[in-house]
Amino acid sequence: MAVDAARPRPRVVIVGAGFGGINAARGLAGCGVDILLIDRTNHHVFQPLLYQVATAALAPSDIASPVRAMLRRDRATSVIMGEVTGVDTNRRVVTVEDTGEFTYDYLILATGAAYNWFGHEEWSAHATVLKTLSNAETIRQRLLCAFERAESSSDPHEIERLLTFVVVGGGPTGVELAGSIAELARFTLARDFRHIRPQSARVILCEAGSRLLAEFPATLSDYAATALQSLGVEVRLRASVEQIDAAGVQAGGNRIESENAFWCAGTQARPVAAWLGVDAARNGGVKVRPDCSVPGHDEIFVIGDVASLGYRDGRPLPGLAAVAAQQGKYVAKVIAARVNGRRAPRPFHYRNLGTLAMIGRSRAVADLGHIRLRGFPAWLFWSLVHLFLLAGFRNRIVVYVDWSWAWFTYGRGARLIIGEAMLERQKTKLPV
Amino acid sequence: MAVDAARPRPRVVIVGAGFGGINAARGLAGCGVDILLIDRTNHHVFQPLLYQVATAALAPSDIASPVRAMLRRDRATSVIMGEVTGVDTNRRVVTVEDTGEFTYDYLILATGAAYNWFGHEEWSAHATVLKTLSNAETIRQRLLCAFERAESSSDPHEIERLLTFVVVGGGPTGVELAGSIAELARFTLARDFRHIRPQSARVILCEAGSRLLAEFPATLSDYAATALQSLGVEVRLRASVEQIDAAGVQAGGNRIESENAFWCAGTQARPVAAWLGVDAARNGGVKVRPDCSVPGHDEIFVIGDVASLGYRDGRPLPGLAAVAAQQGKYVAKVIAARVNGRRAPRPFHYRNLGTLAMIGRSRAVADLGHIRLRGFPAWLFWSLVHLFLLAGFRNRIVVYVDWSWAWFTYGRGARLIIGEAMLERQKTKLPV
Repeated sequence: MAVDAARPRPRVVIVGAGFGGINAARGLAGCGVDILLIDRTNHHVFQPLLYQVATAALAPSDIASPVRAMLRRDRATSVIMGEVTGVDTNRRVVTVEDTGEFTYDYLILATGAAYNWFGHEEWSAHATVLKTLSNAETIRQRLLCAFERAESSSDPHEIERLLTFVVVGGGPTGVELAGSIAELARFTLARDFRHIRPQSARVILCEAGSRLLAEFPATLSDYAATALQSLGVEVRLRASVEQIDAAGVQAGGNRIESENAFWCAGTQARPVAAWLGVDAARNGGVKVRPDCSVPGHDEIFVIGDVASLGYRDGRPLPGLAAVAAQQGKYVAKVIAARVNGRRAPRPFHYRNLGTLAMIGRSRAVADLGHIRLRGFPAWLFWSLVHLFLLAGFRNRIVVYVDWSWAWFTYGRGARLIIGEAMLERQKTKLPV
Repeated sequence: MAVDAARPRPRVVIVGAGFGGINAARGLAGCGVDILLIDRTNHHVFQPLLYQVATAALAPSDIASPVRAMLRRDRATSVIMGEVTGVDTNRRVVTVEDTGEFTYDYLILATGAAYNWFGHEEWSAHATVLKTLSNAETIRQRLLCAFERAESSSDPHEIERLLTFVVVGGGPTGVELAGSIAELARFTLARDFRHIRPQSARVILCEAGSRLLAEFPATLSDYAATALQSLGVEVRLRASVEQIDAAGVQAGGNRIESENAFWCAGTQARPVAAWLGVDAARNGGVKVRPDCSVPGHDEIFVIGDVASLGYRDGRPLPGLAAVAAQQGKYVAKVIAARVNGRRAPRPFHYRNLGTLAMIGRSRAVADLGHIRLRGFPAWLFWSLVHLFLLAGFRNRIVVYVDWSWAWFTYGRGARLIIGEAMLERQKTKLPV
């Protein structure tokens, strides 16, 4: 269709380059709008595989792609790396720290969720979360340094404390991380040390609820617990965390001496509700209308983990990559329809393509609605789906090579301790 | 041969897991000695490809291997990650910071070289060196952040300063880094930005001497200069650096406004001479006897960049990976012969297998003694040799995939800005 040259093209500002933001930007390309995508990093991360970076199975660049490269084809799309600090809905302006203000005609907020400390932010000094590549590298350094320090130590109590790893949260991320740490210790590192026995490391998974993977059918939860136990993971159910400090974790009334706690518990939406001056749902998300727009602001859309949208029996949609990606594509259609004077699409409907969780080598669970898989078939399905969904041909090949190599040798190539900061930290923690 | 069970096995301590230390440890495996290898990191780095990590062409884990995994087969070899702070030659003890003391019967010092600031250590606050994976990640972050900041800036002077990159030192590392930065800007990033033109970035290579690659024949030096210029690199010869600060570099009497300086100038051996209380050569290295042992200390060997050993016309051996690797294998034979009462091998002789330097896509120089290659044949030779020398089957495959992919697409997969610290730095530097 012809574009009225006298009328400037509408500008769509997208905040966040996760699954929601990237899909929205791609969906809007060529629709007669200018697109500005803002993210605090320069890369899109394939979050479902973050735990493999954290446990040295994959390199950070294997699961991440530069945002600019992903969006380079559409000349009307620009990208800014920066931290959004607020939105002025009256002036229709987004503020980026140290950079300036950007006006919008349409705004898509896809900032994603942060972990929820349930009022105990002080625990974040001792327990690492797993949301970003930087988090994953920190966990990798902590894991590998713990084994190195244990090898150098002559104090049996210190060695035990160093080789005790506590994962908090029995959702998919916690289950995957706990299983992968256990495999790292039992298989990959087993032959590398002379003074300690890496396979004696304890991995403890604490879940506040009565079963793991609460979103899955109970039979798969039970299978996951059994599979983790066979890897040597201690699964503790109904074990709410009461305290985390530098020397350990208190959960379900029991104290665990450990220097390595990892936090994969509930999530909380980033402060989008506060930016917009609207009420937040229980998890901090913004309650949106069926077309993902914000009540009172037809031009603002909130998608992904930061949106709260009813689903079937009123439960909000889960915080899954698939939900964010589908919503990103959907709001692109809504905006394109409005800009081009077409009829608005029907309300957003989430097509549930299934939920997957990996437990370890050849073990996974998959809930595909009518079909439920576990064990090797689920693991094979998981591997193929993740390879297929990874962004970029190069990443698919490299991840395939790494997985094949690891499957046959138990080797993990990315076992590097690089950060100077971590070595400093290590030094200060060692007894003098 | 039978080992006398009553006599304890001699212990060989090796400091440094570079090409010298790794080859010494491998050569000593199964020779009836206990081996302890100490390194400040947990990985061996294939240093000739560090510049490709610095320019986002390869991931850190592609060119590094965990030391423990490399040495796991020999049960008499242990590894400690730690910083050696001194040697007591009377008590035959090596001190490791925060860990303790380790006695030795034989000691191999292979700590490698650091960069030489020629008395201007204060420049190290502004110019990044390229010796470790951590250095390479810092350079990658600085390069990528410079383009991101320029894209967000509206000040033409600031943009120019941000997109000016100064490489100091026209040896192989400087030549390779300068060529690779130019290719990153001209090809990889060219289509990714909307406000700046990455291909307008200036890359300036400053060399104090009268030609690049002083170790190579003059015809290859000239070819390298011409090839770099055709990539857009400004080659400045006889341009000694006089000043480096946060806003620029003064070299050969000219001031260059730049926020990104990289230091690849002369090297200096680490303080091994001071540990041993012996005189150092001009570059800080320890003068060793023809069997690489230290005068007055038959049981101590110094190899690689930290050794100073005459060669042909009295010039010391170059600081090459090949020299260190051959010396590592050699001293392993010397020690094995002594321990097992065999005749000592002949004095060390360096087998010069040639010198290579890469300039850019399809361009390199190779000095193989009688044969001198340049252009595509040299580049092909360079690629095959480096693939062959890389440690580990997995790394070879992944690097091969990355190089092939980059050759056809100009893409570079590892373009990630990850460190939080670098973003902080970026913020503080931006005008408020």
